[in-house]
Amino acid sequence: METPLRVAIVGHGYWGPNLLRNYFDLSDVWVSWVCDSRPEALEKAQRRYPAVPVTTDLDRVLGDPDVDAVVIATPISTHHPIALAALEAGKHVFIEKPMTADTQQACELVELAEDRGLKLMVGHTFVFSPPVRKVKEIIESGALGDIYFVTTQRVNLGLHQKDVSVVWDLAPHDISILYYWLGEAAQAVTTTGRCCIVKDIPDVAFMNLRFPSGVVAEIQASWLSPVKLRRTIVVGSRKMLVYDDTENVEKVKIFDHGVDFEEPEDFGEFQLSYRTGDIVSPKIQGVEPLFLEASHFVECCRSGATPITDGWAGLQVVASLEAAQASLDNGGAGIDLPEQALRARA
Amino acid sequence: METPLRVAIVGHGYWGPNLLRNYFDLSDVWVSWVCDSRPEALEKAQRRYPAVPVTTDLDRVLGDPDVDAVVIATPISTHHPIALAALEAGKHVFIEKPMTADTQQACELVELAEDRGLKLMVGHTFVFSPPVRKVKEIIESGALGDIYFVTTQRVNLGLHQKDVSVVWDLAPHDISILYYWLGEAAQAVTTTGRCCIVKDIPDVAFMNLRFPSGVVAEIQASWLSPVKLRRTIVVGSRKMLVYDDTENVEKVKIFDHGVDFEEPEDFGEFQLSYRTGDIVSPKIQGVEPLFLEASHFVECCRSGATPITDGWAGLQVVASLEAAQASLDNGGAGIDLPEQALRARA
Amino acid sequence: METPLRVAIVGHGYWGPNLLRNYFDLSDVWVSWVCDSRPEALEKAQRRYPAVPVTTDLDRVLGDPDVDAVVIATPISTHHPIALAALEAGKHVFIEKPMTADTQQACELVELAEDRGLKLMVGHTFVFSPPVRKVKEIIESGALGDIYFVTTQRVNLGLHQKDVSVVWDLAPHDISILYYWLGEAAQAVTTTGRCCIVKDIPDVAFMNLRFPSGVVAEIQASWLSPVKLRRTIVVGSRKMLVYDDTENVEKVKIFDHGVDFEEPEDFGEFQLSYRTGDIVSPKIQGVEPLFLEASHFVECCRSGATPITDGWAGLQVVASLEAAQASLDNGGAGIDLPEQALRARA
Amino acid sequence: METPLRVAIVGHGYWGPNLLRNYFDLSDVWVSWVCDSRPEALEKAQRRYPAVPVTTDLDRVLGDPDVDAVVIATPISTHHPIALAALEAGKHVFIEKPMTADTQQACELVELAEDRGLKLMVGHTFVFSPPVRKVKEIIESGALGDIYFVTTQRVNLGLHQKDVSVVWDLAPHDISILYYWLGEAAQAVTTTGRCCIVKDIPDVAFMNLRFPSGVVAEIQASWLSPVKLRRTIVVGSRKMLVYDDTENVEKVKIFDHGVDFEEPEDFGEFQLSYRTGDIVSPKIQGVEPLFLEASHFVECCRSGATPITDGWAGLQVVASLEAAQASLDNGGAGIDLPEQALRARA
Repeated sequence: METPLRVAIVGHGYWGPNLLRNYFDLSDVWVSWVCDSRPEALEKAQRRYPAVPVTTDLDRVLGDPDVDAVVIATPISTHHPIALAALEAGKHVFIEKPMTADTQQACELVELAEDRGLKLMVGHTFVFSPPVRKVKEIIESGALGDIYFVTTQRVNLGLHQKDVSVVWDLAPHDISILYYWLGEAAQAVTTTGRCCIVKDIPDVAFMNLRFPSGVVAEIQASWLSPVKLRRTIVVGSRKMLVYDDTENVEKVKIFDHGVDFEEPEDFGEFQLSYRTGDIVSPKIQGVEPLFLEASHFVECCRSGATPITDGWAGLQVVASLEAAQASLDNGGAGIDLPEQALRARA
Repeated sequence: METPLRVAIVGHGYWGPNLLRNYFDLSDVWVSWVCDSRPEALEKAQRRYPAVPVTTDLDRVLGDPDVDAVVIATPISTHHPIALAALEAGKHVFIEKPMTADTQQACELVELAEDRGLKLMVGHTFVFSPPVRKVKEIIESGALGDIYFVTTQRVNLGLHQKDVSVVWDLAPHDISILYYWLGEAAQAVTTTGRCCIVKDIPDVAFMNLRFPSGVVAEIQASWLSPVKLRRTIVVGSRKMLVYDDTENVEKVKIFDHGVDFEEPEDFGEFQLSYRTGDIVSPKIQGVEPLFLEASHFVECCRSGATPITDGWAGLQVVASLEAAQASLDNGGAGIDLPEQALRARA
Repeated sequence: METPLRVAIVGHGYWGPNLLRNYFDLSDVWVSWVCDSRPEALEKAQRRYPAVPVTTDLDRVLGDPDVDAVVIATPISTHHPIALAALEAGKHVFIEKPMTADTQQACELVELAEDRGLKLMVGHTFVFSPPVRKVKEIIESGALGDIYFVTTQRVNLGLHQKDVSVVWDLAPHDISILYYWLGEAAQAVTTTGRCCIVKDIPDVAFMNLRFPSGVVAEIQASWLSPVKLRRTIVVGSRKMLVYDDTENVEKVKIFDHGVDFEEPEDFGEFQLSYRTGDIVSPKIQGVEPLFLEASHFVECCRSGATPITDGWAGLQVVASLEAAQASLDNGGAGIDLPEQALRARA
Repeated sequence: METPLRVAIVGHGYWGPNLLRNYFDLSDVWVSWVCDSRPEALEKAQRRYPAVPVTTDLDRVLGDPDVDAVVIATPISTHHPIALAALEAGKHVFIEKPMTADTQQACELVELAEDRGLKLMVGHTFVFSPPVRKVKEIIESGALGDIYFVTTQRVNLGLHQKDVSVVWDLAPHDISILYYWLGEAAQAVTTTGRCCIVKDIPDVAFMNLRFPSGVVAEIQASWLSPVKLRRTIVVGSRKMLVYDDTENVEKVKIFDHGVDFEEPEDFGEFQLSYRTGDIVSPKIQGVEPLFLEASHFVECCRSGATPITDGWAGLQVVASLEAAQASLDNGGAGIDLPEQALRARA
């Protein structure tokens, strides 16, 4: 067996404990530190994992030569400085989504990681969820044909964030899923929304995205809804599918439905024929996405492989959120994404 | 009993027979003529209603002094000239939706009808459907509080129109419903879409609307979808509701859900409290909307009352479609509605 | 083209008009007569089909040498005498379900038809419905393996019959479907029920059936229910399926689920392994069952083939209803079906 | 604050840990012992609750004068001897369902507890679940009127028990719920079922119950089903309801539906009028039933109140299971419940 990868968890607030649990349970990982500026947060960690050392001193963690990788689950505003320091200290870095508070910060991290030959991965957990993986597999198999458009709804009652809009809170999930499926980032975004409950904090947003390939997409995100909806529809030239994450069993359904265009003969009118066939709901494995995500980070640190949700992916999502927020703040104006977000990865 | 209202049906194609049947069944109406330029269309009418005179000659219909009102169900491009001629001949006019092919034409008809003191009504049939009426009643009762936003989906596989986009085909339903509920027209529209199957005919569109009151709305319309969706969500400050027209029984559900904002004390942070209460699905009457619509037109012609879906309502919808189409054609640019659409009715 | 089959429709009440419409629309059929003892029922038929002769005189119909077949849609109590007279007059006979009021009457008709070489068919319309046909096809393909058990619910609010129990009204549908699928009739029935609204008319019944092959089944039938349910579950040794007739699209779903029994080794304990796989909803054609039923009767009269729902099938259903009613009337006692019901068809 | 109630948990297998956790979390309870014959089971308890003493010696627990109550979660066959010994040692007793392996054993425990003035409670946990409580409240309010009948389905794929039928495994839930709602036990049971997978272990059962009040009920229980169903329908003379435990939100729905019988005038025919009104889904609290159950037991031990699910309730369920099993073993014969099960509680 190999030497275990030594990981430090920085941030033990709302999400950190989930990361800690998953890294702790990985057989080839050693959790070297749990670090948080709040002593009461560390107490909780110690109660649950008495054997794991804790500290409020980030420098001590970064200065520890036995730490291979740092997992960051702190508030967004601190992602950039902590990740920067960790990379400079020669550690691989995993950051919770969204990666940074703006595109510029994201660029810096991506470049620094590339310069130093370190892994940089972002916690776009849904990319590791079995139904999202299944849809990716279906798309890549060509079963859907060319993708025409995607619509997705992520609405539910609560919980309003106090510092960021619903776009920064909920849309990272859908954007990361879309970019993963489509293999490209949007080039332009238009967003309409409203601050219903709290001044200056939009809690409902309709984001329209255009992709270089011609695909269009719509993301509905809201903290206000009578019903919980987590439904995504993907329409392709051959087949169509629905991914409904609120379903217990049939999360993904593939519809053998389509329209065939028949070229007009001799100046005649074109004809369309509609086809509705079988509907198949493939068996989806019940594995915890967070566990797959943690395993993937560890595997990439070891093997040198590029993480699926690497710094570029994180950057693309941050640039998209920034564009969507700019559109929201400017009455729904169309905003182009910056060039970096569209740059193909090496 | 009063003298029956004498009505001429102009256009006996796809929709005309439904209008003919409903006007024929009204006890206080006399169908004087069925008029269509295609003799084979008239044959069908005669087979079904041997007692009703038919003609291909519109002038004969408009010149008949015994005709009180003209019901127009011809292709959109002919709505304007036929309605104009009918109004000039002193007839009340009912036109199928959308009222005209552009806002200018709509203005002319509205003004002419007002000048002549004639009724002008548009066939926004959903405004007469019992669940839509029920929602209007709920909103007017104040049960929902202030309306924050509305989302609606009208997607299904087929049928592509050959001359107009999905916006002109499907969105008139949702726009007319929204304007009826909210009592105002949108002031600006942003639309993203795509021509998936037929060149230059967008078959999927995401329309974002902003209203003078601050309400925002999103209309999804598509002829391409694996599933049929007819779902509208209305979120208010007190309660929220779902209107799902694909449900057989529980078409409208009112959720006693909401968020209460508590002002911060002494420079503290604000607090939000979430409330989820009972869900009620009110009994909805099973009446045919078209019958109610026809009765309403007849009633307005007789009494002089203004139709709920009068020429102004028709004009607002046409102006909105025109704006949405312009946005679609310009890469999702925000388009303001013309002043006429916002003008309050007398 | 062949000479058309000449059919007389006897009974033009609730159901007769549906039969008349379907036989009238068949290209190779001539409706010779509509017969009903009530002149007002005949008036309705004449208004709709002025060319079809009507009469209140059954003897005239049966004495007409040009009538090939008689279709009977009269009250149950008259099925036996009318069918008997028709067979004696040398006519093929189609009878609405249930075929007769008791097993003895059913036997007489079956025997007479066999003696005279005439076709006798019963209107178990669901046997001709596309989803029921699809399930039959799936079962016959062996995809489900051996059938273990079937449960079915047919409940809704209304309409109480005034002369027969819910068993005689609703259960014929499910019994005929089950016998068609399984290829066998039940050998014993136990029924529990209650007269909730009207004295001596049970309006809810739970029927338990045992089949010679070991299959067990449960039929819930009720005119009292808050929701409409038309759901049937078939559990087989290889796969399982759900047939839900209230669904618009996914009426049949096949689940690749099962349990595998592993024999214990060396006095050990047996092991069970559970398997859950893909779920498939096959495309179902949208054809009117009544049209297929009418076509089948005509085809059998012409070709001499035995109808799928022949007199034996009708007899089995009547015998089952009689047994179920006897159980109901005797506090849920187990009642064996008479030998005739189990007799294999030639 | 009062002296805490000192409780010993006997049995730490599949279900015991849940009881331990809940009793441990109660503020006025002291868990004195965890007892199990298997040392490895005790190890698990100690790892989780290092402060709680464990033992394999039941006599030591029962001989401890500081133990007030014994909570039994051992295999069914041991319920009777352990409970008997505990009562004889002067301890209050809580037993997991089903209370005992037969009615005779149940009678002995009930009588002994009454003789000694000790509390005897059975773990019919569903009686403490918020939606079941809500339905009880609705029934008691008279909103449903008289109850006509109840149907319930508890089916899912797995898990087969190795020693008892599906009746003994799943039906205790439904029987205890029904008896709680109706305030009476069934007087006769008819059960049809089949051993599909394992010889002599029925894995599907259709139980029909008749109650002294005239209510009839049907319980479907199965370890074989393509879909998970947990649906109960209660039909009353005024309203009807559906309780669906698989729903996340609308677990209980009350339908203002019904049929009104109008007496015939002057030898005429009776008339029925059908009524369908609003549907209401009341807000249900999200409290863990097991916590409420544990609190109730503690409260009864302290106050001397009779538990809702006392020994009589346990006895009624056991007698019903015994009758259902006897019917199952005798080809669906009707079996009357013994007199004890029907005896009104003091």
